[in-house]
Amino acid sequence: MELIFLGTGAGIPSPERNVTAVALALNEERGTFWLFDCGEATQHQIMRSPLKLSRLEYIFITHLHGDHIYGLPGLLSSRSYHGGTTPLTIFGPAGLARFIETSLQVSGSHLDYELRIEELQEGVIFEDEQFTISCARLEHRIDSYGYRIVEHDLPGRLDRDRLIADGILPGPIYQQIKLSKEPIAYEGRLLDPKRYVGPDIPGRKLAILGDTRPAPNALQLAQTVDVLVHEATFAEAEAELARRYYHTTTRQAAEIAAQAGAGELILTHFSSRYNREDLAWLIQEASRYHKPVYAAYDGYQHPIPRK
Amino acid sequence: MELIFLGTGAGIPSPERNVTAVALALNEERGTFWLFDCGEATQHQIMRSPLKLSRLEYIFITHLHGDHIYGLPGLLSSRSYHGGTTPLTIFGPAGLARFIETSLQVSGSHLDYELRIEELQEGVIFEDEQFTISCARLEHRIDSYGYRIVEHDLPGRLDRDRLIADGILPGPIYQQIKLSKEPIAYEGRLLDPKRYVGPDIPGRKLAILGDTRPAPNALQLAQTVDVLVHEATFAEAEAELARRYYHTTTRQAAEIAAQAGAGELILTHFSSRYNREDLAWLIQEASRYHKPVYAAYDGYQHPIPRK
Repeated sequence: MELIFLGTGAGIPSPERNVTAVALALNEERGTFWLFDCGEATQHQIMRSPLKLSRLEYIFITHLHGDHIYGLPGLLSSRSYHGGTTPLTIFGPAGLARFIETSLQVSGSHLDYELRIEELQEGVIFEDEQFTISCARLEHRIDSYGYRIVEHDLPGRLDRDRLIADGILPGPIYQQIKLSKEPIAYEGRLLDPKRYVGPDIPGRKLAILGDTRPAPNALQLAQTVDVLVHEATFAEAEAELARRYYHTTTRQAAEIAAQAGAGELILTHFSSRYNREDLAWLIQEASRYHKPVYAAYDGYQHPIPRK
Repeated sequence: MELIFLGTGAGIPSPERNVTAVALALNEERGTFWLFDCGEATQHQIMRSPLKLSRLEYIFITHLHGDHIYGLPGLLSSRSYHGGTTPLTIFGPAGLARFIETSLQVSGSHLDYELRIEELQEGVIFEDEQFTISCARLEHRIDSYGYRIVEHDLPGRLDRDRLIADGILPGPIYQQIKLSKEPIAYEGRLLDPKRYVGPDIPGRKLAILGDTRPAPNALQLAQTVDVLVHEATFAEAEAELARRYYHTTTRQAAEIAAQAGAGELILTHFSSRYNREDLAWLIQEASRYHKPVYAAYDGYQHPIPRK
């Protein structure tokens, strides 16, 4: 599991930063990746990354501003060219379907895969054996959402040495022991799984939020996450600008991370007034209120290992 | 007057070529530039070029395939950010207005300038003191148009030495002599402008065509132009592929240039199977049927001087 930042700028592309998109690579977990927002030229950024467009499984759009969605029509079309045939689902605010359907229809684009578009309601939007994803509304000029991604706990590690010492030889029984919470009958005796299975491996938790002022729901979504991706369009000194344009400062993002008991805070969506060299002091500024803080740049890869 | 190729690839972006867009820079003529087609990330390509988005005056769309229009919403929005306040007119096939209006509306984008969208009818679409532009339908899977851009002839150069020798001193009379076709009364005598004004300076003529099979209208639009920009998606050997996908080969493009009595032929819109190193033999192939031939690449600047 790794975050790959494809676009980390606000509003318009700059020579240093493309408009917003961040991928969650799930190579080991699912052999796929998920995309959060899709500003113009996100497919170009993917071409320069280790990601393969055909492996894209879900897209989560935070809000409908152009710098977060204008890359969708091209990316969806190119996914066919790149051999993508598996279904793709896009979650996003109401209006998203109209934008995508109009774009594809006017341009006569045909997709070689099934495209599903799900317009958001607050709450759980996705659940399978591995993950539960929920969303909640933040505070921006237009409806903007944050996503909370919770990986389910995994069963603990098997103690193979002890199994063999107890005369239980490798076979399908190992998987049964691993997954069972109850004693299991085996060759005339009852095995207690707890004797052979370590404690559950905790799933990872992330929050990836759209553009917003500091918002109560941001705090909820970020509660005890391992990684919080929060916008920091402006430095601390520009709090008035941030408020006026419905954005967040470095300090405010760090305060949310601290209050939420979050782990790593990754700042992104920087105004084009800040250059690559400014990242060091922006991190420093935020680090007074929370630690650790990272600042994303285009191409930045942030692994999220299991604990 | 200069052509600046911003995207020269077909269908999808590749690491070498972006999707289609070509600018006609009119610095000396109007202090503006015009854009022909606007694939995704055209605004990014403009950022890397000498062009300034605020100076964009007209956009001409050849057809509605995504690789020719998906850059429009982002470019139109960014033109406001970059201080563009003068009106902008976009010409293109029916359906274009719906795509643009839906994109801007769904994303809540506000433009600081007047945007006019004119859906195409064959014939003259634009005329002012300097230029006449007409369009005609080509042969593609969907409606695709070519544009013919005709610069009006300019009055010839004034022979200042002869004017002074004849006792006509510099003043508003010089401009009158330059622009008049009839004798002019001046201090009691009649001046014959032909004595002082050289022959008309011929305007330049260009044809910039959308995706197409070899088409009779291409021949019409390209008639005696100084520069013909024609797609050559495929090499000569792939004529069958070109026919199937409604495209043109190097050879076919050159034959059209030759039959039309065109001057320079610039090939563009190459399939991603061709690399930068292939351009030499693609040019060679076309050059057997017409000369001179150029092959466009992203960033290629082609000046069109007055004769």
